[in-house]
Amino acid sequence: MTTEGHIDFFFKPESIALIGASPNPEKLSCTILESLLKMGFQGKIYPVNPGYQEIRGLKCYPAPDEIPDKIDIAIFAVKASTVLEILNGPVDNIKGAIIVSSGFREMGPEGKELEIRLKELLEKKGIRAMGPNCLGIYDTASKVDTFFISSDKVERPARGRVSVLTQSGSFAAMIMDELANEGVGVARVVSYGNKVDVDESDCLEFLAGDKATKAIALYIESVGNGRRFLATASRCVQKKPVVALKVGKREPGARAASSHTGAVSGRYEAYEAAFRKAGIIEVETYEELKDACKVLNRYPLVEGKRVLIITDGGGIGISIADACEEAGLRVPEIASETVAELKEKLPAFASVRNPVDLTGSVKDEHYVAALQEAFREEYDLAIVSLLWGPPLLSKGVAEKIRNFADSCGKPVLICSPGGKFSREMASAFTATGMPVFFTPDSAVRAAAVLCGRKK
Amino acid sequence: MTTEGHIDFFFKPESIALIGASPNPEKLSCTILESLLKMGFQGKIYPVNPGYQEIRGLKCYPAPDEIPDKIDIAIFAVKASTVLEILNGPVDNIKGAIIVSSGFREMGPEGKELEIRLKELLEKKGIRAMGPNCLGIYDTASKVDTFFISSDKVERPARGRVSVLTQSGSFAAMIMDELANEGVGVARVVSYGNKVDVDESDCLEFLAGDKATKAIALYIESVGNGRRFLATASRCVQKKPVVALKVGKREPGARAASSHTGAVSGRYEAYEAAFRKAGIIEVETYEELKDACKVLNRYPLVEGKRVLIITDGGGIGISIADACEEAGLRVPEIASETVAELKEKLPAFASVRNPVDLTGSVKDEHYVAALQEAFREEYDLAIVSLLWGPPLLSKGVAEKIRNFADSCGKPVLICSPGGKFSREMASAFTATGMPVFFTPDSAVRAAAVLCGRKK
Repeated sequence: MTTEGHIDFFFKPESIALIGASPNPEKLSCTILESLLKMGFQGKIYPVNPGYQEIRGLKCYPAPDEIPDKIDIAIFAVKASTVLEILNGPVDNIKGAIIVSSGFREMGPEGKELEIRLKELLEKKGIRAMGPNCLGIYDTASKVDTFFISSDKVERPARGRVSVLTQSGSFAAMIMDELANEGVGVARVVSYGNKVDVDESDCLEFLAGDKATKAIALYIESVGNGRRFLATASRCVQKKPVVALKVGKREPGARAASSHTGAVSGRYEAYEAAFRKAGIIEVETYEELKDACKVLNRYPLVEGKRVLIITDGGGIGISIADACEEAGLRVPEIASETVAELKEKLPAFASVRNPVDLTGSVKDEHYVAALQEAFREEYDLAIVSLLWGPPLLSKGVAEKIRNFADSCGKPVLICSPGGKFSREMASAFTATGMPVFFTPDSAVRAAAVLCGRKK
Repeated sequence: MTTEGHIDFFFKPESIALIGASPNPEKLSCTILESLLKMGFQGKIYPVNPGYQEIRGLKCYPAPDEIPDKIDIAIFAVKASTVLEILNGPVDNIKGAIIVSSGFREMGPEGKELEIRLKELLEKKGIRAMGPNCLGIYDTASKVDTFFISSDKVERPARGRVSVLTQSGSFAAMIMDELANEGVGVARVVSYGNKVDVDESDCLEFLAGDKATKAIALYIESVGNGRRFLATASRCVQKKPVVALKVGKREPGARAASSHTGAVSGRYEAYEAAFRKAGIIEVETYEELKDACKVLNRYPLVEGKRVLIITDGGGIGISIADACEEAGLRVPEIASETVAELKEKLPAFASVRNPVDLTGSVKDEHYVAALQEAFREEYDLAIVSLLWGPPLLSKGVAEKIRNFADSCGKPVLICSPGGKFSREMASAFTATGMPVFFTPDSAVRAAAVLCGRKK
């Protein structure tokens, strides 16, 4: 068995078996079945449990080999020792496994021993596997959801363009929940846990050629085969942007990572160098990775790094400009001939420089006028910030700006800070498919990612 | 007239006149009256406008000097030229003015001329003034609210312990709205705009001795009298923590600041040095200043910088640990004798190191047990992170952790990322008066502030 490639079937399965299926809502497997059904998976679902004839109206099988079908994905939701027991039995019809069970390498020496045996078994039986100690796949393209956390607790994002790869299940759940909550979609999310077999490189290789994926976000505790990762990532970056957050950078974080998914983090500097070499955009914090997902779900990367800032509040314009400079972006002045034209179309008190301050007298059309006049060749992207205090500003501004953004071919990022009222107003942007950044810092982090974070 | 001190009456007024009062909801003054009434100001309110006999059931006066009372605060909500006109007339009974009107220095040469005349007039008449081009005061101690943005649009925070000083009105509105939305209170907020008279030093001097204020957050575009600021701030820092964000640091931001409140930002390095010398904790971004307000509303500064991290999700623990190290905080290992005791009280799979990972098997009491056992002398503060996926975790954990935090005498910061469900669960902490930080980065920014951001 080669460890490379051939994992496409995980992302277009025709049949899924759920080993350890149960109608008991306290069992993880019960939630997994719920997730699969809710997601609307169109293929076959086969519950497996010798204790039941039927679960949720689906025929239940005593063992995987009793299923009269090949199994693209067998989800193992049983305890660690049972996983090995089952794999020791007849499992010829299983192609791929998602082993969500914990109790392996992350548990110390005994668990590690178990995981070594698991690996041997999988290789012997020719089964590709994700996990153990993982959540598996949330896939808006193939309609697969193997997550054992209910959607009441962790909201599922709609279909989007960014795929997320992560060792950490809690990270997968957290970012999915937050993105969904902010109206941002994802393509495919893979939580591969301890990586007994399938790892980041396997997934990257698949995602590189995946039409549903326009950008990739990586949450990396450790990389097993550095050379292969570098090669795969480099190929991938030729086709679509790849953003990565390396965690466990320093001693305590690294210590925690080792007990978490049994990962050995390695020297951070090596990762940094590999990311640079592969052309991966490295981000430094969780917030940055999330901002990257939000912005890459809507926009491709841009060539330059010259930012036009348009706002209706002086203070926030300054904060955005400061943050841009800090992030290595540029905030060039508006050309003087443009200034003259702009002055005619903007409110009397408006400050016509970069940042443009439309002031509290702003009307919806002023935002569009400012974009139309000022967002010329000299800028690569625009950050448009809205405080919703001005009395003449309405939700209608969202569609106007979206239409402009669609036609101009360059990214327009929306920044809308504030509480309840502002969130409600800003939802007009989310409704048109434009992500909203809720702080100046967040909008600038997203802009920096689009510019490739080139300082 | 000295520019120093004597502005206490702005923060305990007995009478407020509203010049330019109007029942027309399109006028700013209408919103200001609404704000004052809603806030429950206990003193006298005198509307002033020759066009009305009465507004909102209050007798309306044709001119300020017709009011048979001294006026602690006269709010000027009329256009720039009218401000000067009125001040040229009889205004002997006015002690202080809040001039919200724009159209002064921020408007260029003509406005600057107007502002110079305004300053002369105020000095001649012996009137202390905030503004122009400002929102004025939002004060939970004296129940004054002069903000001309309705509370439907910008929520008002409850009574709290941090006072905020800012040139920028939009910043004042933004941070108040966000703090209110996250259940965090404030003491007094002053938006002093162009600073024709009252400036950051005057306010700092008052706040230094103010019992209602336990900590101070500054949003600074520029400082007029650097020497006085340094002296006042140094005295203030002896009594309570002062945190500052300098905006307009770099060229474009500085350029915007000059057209915004007419400020000349000066060299950033000079500010940096002054902050350091005065003992001010400088923060670098809007998000950091907000996190500072949240944490200082609840906790005093701590001496050391050793952080205990407790979580129920491995990935997030690693992110917090990484961010701590990045911020110059320390994440020391748990003493080995403590580890043994802890192991008996925590879930079987728990990782008993720092970060402690209580895993998905966590129950409410495990958080408290982990705090009780591990939060010893070797730590200065704890960051407790909760993902709400674990089935046995309940809202009740909030009161348990709050009780522990109250008794232990050291800060316990709550980190709860996620979407709708998590926010709802986390609201249990807000209800007990504990601020909630929604990302690992945010919790660590707050921790760094409590440690004085000493690297």
